[in-house]
Amino acid sequence: MMTPVASLAECEAGLAGSLGACARLVEQALDVLLPTPEGAEARLTEAMRYAALGGGKRLRAFLVMEGAALFAVSETCAARVAASVEMLHAYSLVHDDLPAMDDDDLRRGKPSAHRAFDEATAILAGDALQTRAFEVLAEPDTHSDPQARCELVAALAAASGARGMAGGQMLDMLAEGGTLTAAEVTRLQALKTGRLIQFSAEAGAILGRAPPPQRLSLAGYGRDLGAAFQIADDLLDAVGSTAEIGKTAGKDAGSGKATLVALLGVERARAQAELLAEQAAGHLDGFGRRADMLRQLAEYVVSRRS
Amino acid sequence: MMTPVASLAECEAGLAGSLGACARLVEQALDVLLPTPEGAEARLTEAMRYAALGGGKRLRAFLVMEGAALFAVSETCAARVAASVEMLHAYSLVHDDLPAMDDDDLRRGKPSAHRAFDEATAILAGDALQTRAFEVLAEPDTHSDPQARCELVAALAAASGARGMAGGQMLDMLAEGGTLTAAEVTRLQALKTGRLIQFSAEAGAILGRAPPPQRLSLAGYGRDLGAAFQIADDLLDAVGSTAEIGKTAGKDAGSGKATLVALLGVERARAQAELLAEQAAGHLDGFGRRADMLRQLAEYVVSRRS
Repeated sequence: MMTPVASLAECEAGLAGSLGACARLVEQALDVLLPTPEGAEARLTEAMRYAALGGGKRLRAFLVMEGAALFAVSETCAARVAASVEMLHAYSLVHDDLPAMDDDDLRRGKPSAHRAFDEATAILAGDALQTRAFEVLAEPDTHSDPQARCELVAALAAASGARGMAGGQMLDMLAEGGTLTAAEVTRLQALKTGRLIQFSAEAGAILGRAPPPQRLSLAGYGRDLGAAFQIADDLLDAVGSTAEIGKTAGKDAGSGKATLVALLGVERARAQAELLAEQAAGHLDGFGRRADMLRQLAEYVVSRRS
Repeated sequence: MMTPVASLAECEAGLAGSLGACARLVEQALDVLLPTPEGAEARLTEAMRYAALGGGKRLRAFLVMEGAALFAVSETCAARVAASVEMLHAYSLVHDDLPAMDDDDLRRGKPSAHRAFDEATAILAGDALQTRAFEVLAEPDTHSDPQARCELVAALAAASGARGMAGGQMLDMLAEGGTLTAAEVTRLQALKTGRLIQFSAEAGAILGRAPPPQRLSLAGYGRDLGAAFQIADDLLDAVGSTAEIGKTAGKDAGSGKATLVALLGVERARAQAELLAEQAAGHLDGFGRRADMLRQLAEYVVSRRS
């Protein structure tokens, strides 16, 4: 007899519970791994903790944890990698919000780091969050095999440097007020947010020393999920309220930001996001039921309302 | 028969030649290792290259190369680590020069990155230089043993994060206009510049898988050399000209920056720097004549005029 398929509502409840549990786990890991506010430089470590703790859906952390679970990686090791990715992500948000960049006063429902502290502190806190992310990956507790740790460092760096996230943010700055084609917007978003989401999905395979085809499947999943997620995020910005999304809504249109929503319209953009989410789930066929949570996540990212 | 001791002039000529050769070598390594300006995001990679290429004495690179030579490490591997440290250093200069930080228009005799490009590009270029520094260290070409590569990543991160360079810059920002004691200034400088110089001196021992006492000796050398170097730098700021030092002179006093020169006066500060340089050389006793270039460097950093 086949296991009965869970209803959509049951799936969503299960996913919400898993996301919540993962968020609590990574919060604890971050609390332990972030430097404590001590010494005369405590303002810096306070700002790092302010930016990295207590916020966000922890989507990237969830991808790391679920990917690692496919290969029976220890939860302690996976949580260190999840925390590391969240530090890297937090650094990028702190710097993106700076007055010289997107100039945003609100992040995750509270004042952005340069508003809560000041610009210099925010720049330094972002810098030191990036540094700590790589340090955690390189430390022996992350994996007994230093080869796996080096691969994690190199892969996270590739995803977040000039040919990844930072390059994407550069494209985003250059695009403001200009006109990009849909292909250009797609590449911008693949770099700016896609690469880090792809790394998060792949990290479990690196930790689990998985054979290349499995790592490639997870990378494909992450790539398509990231693309779907970004369109969904832009849809929320276009149609959501500031209170719902925890950051300034309608900002993209106001600043002339290049998004697929602006280029294709809400309906076509939504259809594209849904197609990408289906495509993402398709990469998981080889993993059987163990990947159900990742499949549900793909549905969730395009249906979420905040 | 003992090898005759070289005259001071001969030593200085030898050191200058070695520094110059090392600077050319690391310049080549940086040119190869930095991303090339391609694609729509070329502005970012151009800014990274602008900030990291063609400037500076390459003191940190020289420490890496000379330290590595003590353990017969391949020059190719050592040059990658040297380039990585210089990228990290370049990132810190780009961010320190930002309007929200030290607000400096001049660096290494040319416009600072945010003046040559713009603030957003400078922030991103600094970010991506840091990322690339860790990526290079983690890549297989840096060392055949991944354990050594992980140690390099973790040690560079420890030297440059919240408990190192970034923490020191935070202290520096907090100190502006205030009054620090000599002990507080010493700690600030140990974090802000000392830790990275210490890492540079130690890196060769990590690459060479040297026994702990030898690594500790090089770390001690780097620590004292870094302290001497910083006082010498502050002396140059106090008594040098902008043309000689390639950045705005007299800036420390103007901005009320905490320096030992301001606290102790020029003569006592100079004496302190010379004492530290002697102390630095003292750590090299176990290495014999092979460490002569590092000894000469200790003399040079406190006698240089630019």
